[in-house]
Amino acid sequence: MTQPASHSAAPVRAVDVIAKKRDGHELSAAEIESFIVGYTDGQIADYQASAWLMSVVLRGMTRAETSALTNAMLHSGEVLDFSEFAAAKVDKHSTGGVGDKTSLVLAPLVAAAGLVVPMISGRGLGHTGGTLDKLESIPGFNVNLSTGDFRRVLKQCGCCMIGQTAEIAPADRKLYALRDVTATVESPYLICASIMSKKLAEGIDALVLDVKTGSGAFMNKEEDAVFLAELMVETGERMGKKVVALITDMDQPLGNNIGNALEVAECIDVLRGGGPDDLRELCLELAGWMLHLGGVAETVELGKTNSKQLIQSGAALETFREMVKLQGGNVRAIDDPPLLPRARHTREVTSSRRGFISEIDCRAVGTASVVLGGGRARKEDSIDPSVGIVLHRKLGDSVSAGDAVCTIHYNSETQATQALSLLEKSFVVTTKAPPKKALVRRVIGK
Amino acid sequence: MTQPASHSAAPVRAVDVIAKKRDGHELSAAEIESFIVGYTDGQIADYQASAWLMSVVLRGMTRAETSALTNAMLHSGEVLDFSEFAAAKVDKHSTGGVGDKTSLVLAPLVAAAGLVVPMISGRGLGHTGGTLDKLESIPGFNVNLSTGDFRRVLKQCGCCMIGQTAEIAPADRKLYALRDVTATVESPYLICASIMSKKLAEGIDALVLDVKTGSGAFMNKEEDAVFLAELMVETGERMGKKVVALITDMDQPLGNNIGNALEVAECIDVLRGGGPDDLRELCLELAGWMLHLGGVAETVELGKTNSKQLIQSGAALETFREMVKLQGGNVRAIDDPPLLPRARHTREVTSSRRGFISEIDCRAVGTASVVLGGGRARKEDSIDPSVGIVLHRKLGDSVSAGDAVCTIHYNSETQATQALSLLEKSFVVTTKAPPKKALVRRVIGK
Repeated sequence: MTQPASHSAAPVRAVDVIAKKRDGHELSAAEIESFIVGYTDGQIADYQASAWLMSVVLRGMTRAETSALTNAMLHSGEVLDFSEFAAAKVDKHSTGGVGDKTSLVLAPLVAAAGLVVPMISGRGLGHTGGTLDKLESIPGFNVNLSTGDFRRVLKQCGCCMIGQTAEIAPADRKLYALRDVTATVESPYLICASIMSKKLAEGIDALVLDVKTGSGAFMNKEEDAVFLAELMVETGERMGKKVVALITDMDQPLGNNIGNALEVAECIDVLRGGGPDDLRELCLELAGWMLHLGGVAETVELGKTNSKQLIQSGAALETFREMVKLQGGNVRAIDDPPLLPRARHTREVTSSRRGFISEIDCRAVGTASVVLGGGRARKEDSIDPSVGIVLHRKLGDSVSAGDAVCTIHYNSETQATQALSLLEKSFVVTTKAPPKKALVRRVIGK
Repeated sequence: MTQPASHSAAPVRAVDVIAKKRDGHELSAAEIESFIVGYTDGQIADYQASAWLMSVVLRGMTRAETSALTNAMLHSGEVLDFSEFAAAKVDKHSTGGVGDKTSLVLAPLVAAAGLVVPMISGRGLGHTGGTLDKLESIPGFNVNLSTGDFRRVLKQCGCCMIGQTAEIAPADRKLYALRDVTATVESPYLICASIMSKKLAEGIDALVLDVKTGSGAFMNKEEDAVFLAELMVETGERMGKKVVALITDMDQPLGNNIGNALEVAECIDVLRGGGPDDLRELCLELAGWMLHLGGVAETVELGKTNSKQLIQSGAALETFREMVKLQGGNVRAIDDPPLLPRARHTREVTSSRRGFISEIDCRAVGTASVVLGGGRARKEDSIDPSVGIVLHRKLGDSVSAGDAVCTIHYNSETQATQALSLLEKSFVVTTKAPPKKALVRRVIGK
């Protein structure tokens, strides 16, 4: 195994960059850029990139290195330019959770406020759901638009929601696949660069980050979530963007519905002025920040008030309807959610005792939804948009023996049995009500 | 990038083994074996192996893990069995230095004492020379013998010196090539497993390790050499072998000659009872230990005395002659060393001042020999057996202004000029003689 000959001509040798990080030294922006460019175009081999990734996982990175990595990954592909739109371009990114469906509310709501939301989303990962999978439960909805169609939809309704294209941050796509099989996923520096390079490729001016913490988040500990949030905010600011991060609760699912079509229906409820309190509250909080950073609300509070009005007036729902139509979706399912895919059977999970719900194993609830067919065990698996779980009790709610805590929506008895055994262990009932926790724990940035 | 399908059937997933080491946990022998077997047969990819190697470099290994790794690499290929020979099988391994030529003296000397020396050697690496390159400066000498021929030569003269075959420790060959391009060479655990797996594949009962320390060694610091030596001794003992390690000086070249044919000539001098003091002394010390561990000398001192007699009687030289003949070499060059390849030109490097040699940049002297064509800058380079350097002064020797400190033997003026500029800076002359340092610093084991 020898290094490709072109290396000797390159300004930086891959093996020297690996050795420098291995020994705990700070890499220069030029060294990081050279490594990422070399890896993206195939001059640097996978086996060199994975050794380097592991050295980053174990040695860490300075803020300057993290920014340089984000920048190099961002510029490995196309950076969209929406400067033709006078309004500010804003987006939101969540680190992922269970029942985390705010994107579907936020994109049309913020667009209705006059801003542009060019949202590029992902699919479900592990026990968490993905925005693209949820959107695809709307019959006909197409998430695979060309850049030209993306631009056209944005121009017509102010928001558009698509999947990552081959042109966006190819370095991230290549590195992410490699990290997945080399145990180098768990590094805040690499997570930051992966998220921020993709989001900044959308050509946005401002970004609101929703960093989840708790039993259903990828980061259980709040300090880890705060560390990642600070890293992403500083990286975005170093790159000239307005960025804030909200550390939000994921000790229980967000809203009541988990499962793709069930979550779309719940979002339509919120856009109609209803829906569960926690989901509505978080959507308004995030929208408030997006409107504020986007320059159409002087304060976050004014942004929230504005957002409430856009829901009450029906403007947000109308924008959602418009976007669904422009992306090929059946708008009748928006007007009449029972037309969304529905599972054939339901079964209730009941409480065996009386008291208060003091704990929910949020990750187990997410896994139960995957087990029902609502998520993927392997990348190549197809998903069932109709299945899922509807919660009837949330943290702090009182319950009597025999009361339903949730309902399973399913199409297969085998899957239902597996999900049931997970869910029966997921709710802890105690005689005393647990202390109430804030939905938004902290705000980082600004 | 997905994991090969066969992984799900394997007892251990590669990515889990990498994650466990990444997180600083101790791997079981089964996990290490599964990883090495999987890598050797191609089920585990290079990019997974390199991530794992980097985690080992940065997290280290316990003694149990190091032994398990050595054992797995050893059993990745053929383990020779010389149990047909009644005598003990012993070998010596050096971590490499400049002018380090003891193998050529030791193999025939120890064989002449009645032991069997099945020596598998390597080529020059970096600034150091390699035993195979030295042997090949004897016209006709063949280091590429089959296992059958190796056995036949051993039976006839008690020693045989060959290169690594494809069947010996294939995991090491594959891992070594990968380490070279992923900055994962510098780990005592990986160095130990690499050396010990190859040496134990020779089917030996006892091994004497010559671990070099000083300006011409790969490990400059004595504590690093001691750490590696202890690791190798314990690993060998855990695998049921008799092992000692001598920590020896490499602050200056060993002997006076550096360069392939020049070093062979110097070894013949030692086998004839002459040669420079330090080389002769170290050969007797190492031979003393080999005879003692091999069970033919009750003490190391008796082993040394025995070795001296075998040189004086001519038995050691006769064994060398016999081995050269059996391996296709021209024995006339042994009887008459001027028949060995000789460079066309010589040039002296002189001292500009009077005093004592207080320092020699041993690595620079080794590099000068490589520059002259005696070593390789790249693996595919061919070497010139005739070139090299002959030292006229060693550490502590007095010198007058204008005295020659060494002579360059060369075939190209350009190369000579480069070597000269290195050598002129390599000798430090001071008014006071430096303190004399011991050649053997410490003995580890027994």
